[in-house]
Amino acid sequence: MSQNRGKLYVISGPSGTGKGTICKELLKDNRNEFSVSMTTRAPREGEVHGKDYFFVSKEEFLEHVERGNFLEHATVFDNYYGTPKDMVIKRLERGRNVLLDIDVQGGLQVKAVMPEAVLIFILPPSLAVLRSRLEGRGTETQEVIEKRLSKAVNEIKLIGEYDYIVVNDVLEEAADLARSIMKAENAKVPEKVMPVIRKYEQEEKGE
Amino acid sequence: MSQNRGKLYVISGPSGTGKGTICKELLKDNRNEFSVSMTTRAPREGEVHGKDYFFVSKEEFLEHVERGNFLEHATVFDNYYGTPKDMVIKRLERGRNVLLDIDVQGGLQVKAVMPEAVLIFILPPSLAVLRSRLEGRGTETQEVIEKRLSKAVNEIKLIGEYDYIVVNDVLEEAADLARSIMKAENAKVPEKVMPVIRKYEQEEKGE
Repeated sequence: MSQNRGKLYVISGPSGTGKGTICKELLKDNRNEFSVSMTTRAPREGEVHGKDYFFVSKEEFLEHVERGNFLEHATVFDNYYGTPKDMVIKRLERGRNVLLDIDVQGGLQVKAVMPEAVLIFILPPSLAVLRSRLEGRGTETQEVIEKRLSKAVNEIKLIGEYDYIVVNDVLEEAADLARSIMKAENAKVPEKVMPVIRKYEQEEKGE
Repeated sequence: MSQNRGKLYVISGPSGTGKGTICKELLKDNRNEFSVSMTTRAPREGEVHGKDYFFVSKEEFLEHVERGNFLEHATVFDNYYGTPKDMVIKRLERGRNVLLDIDVQGGLQVKAVMPEAVLIFILPPSLAVLRSRLEGRGTETQEVIEKRLSKAVNEIKLIGEYDYIVVNDVLEEAADLARSIMKAENAKVPEKVMPVIRKYEQEEKGE
């Protein structure tokens, strides 16, 4: 029974686990789309308001905070970033699944505000694999890599708050598992079953 | 994270929805196997004890009832049939998924005894389709078909107790959805997360 309302998927996992690539795979299904964040930082060249970000003033951002309109928000280098709840809900109601690629702390904020969100944790097969992936990028110093690995273990400690674990060993298999999770979530018996029952009852009476 | 322990899947749905065929598809994965019922009826030619059924005396059956060793049991034409809990648990502990093709009443009994069982309801796309499938068999009278349709609607009324809905319109898609549900269930964050966390912590300390 395909439900009309979409679902919010929070995709988290340590840096280097390949969650960005998995999200890209999921976005190939046009029922799925990325959440658009609101930010107070200035737009960079080519960035489109409403597509890359919602660019707003600090005053506007704080108004959203005050009326509780963020699923999560954080400050990075004096700029505010947040996921506006009303925008996400509007898209869920249109039947879209919204994906949110966010760190574990943000994921837990989302779960607190919207308990029906589905939280997926992307894990590396091992820390050794994570290390070699980070080293392979060749963009970070050894010190930064050590910090990331230590942060990874701290994030994994919160895995109990998540709903699903996807180990990203072979990308195609991990993406396939994530797709299976979304299919299964969509097949869950809805909280309100009367519309399902009525469909068959009415057909019986009509016959 | 593939969990070692298997899961019990209850597959229910009105007669004619094709749940038997879906189960056969699932059994192609050799991690999945059918549950074996215990019965007091006499073995038919070719039936193997422990494979088709566990054939027991009425006394033995009633002993199992008394010590609460049935996930569900019922009487059909003076014979008893039941699903022995200890046998199912033994197979789950060996990492097998156990499938139970059973009616909705039986499914609810199972859920009461083993709340962690995953209940999948197979639905026909419509009663009209169900009717034409039943008529297509050519084995039942019109009266029996009417009874089955009416029973189908009564079963569907209990759908709120189930976990997932699989609409069997195109068999291959329905079987694929059932497989996705099993994959997703296997990716659920386990209740005890310490073994998962420890794996990464130990690797960190070892490094």
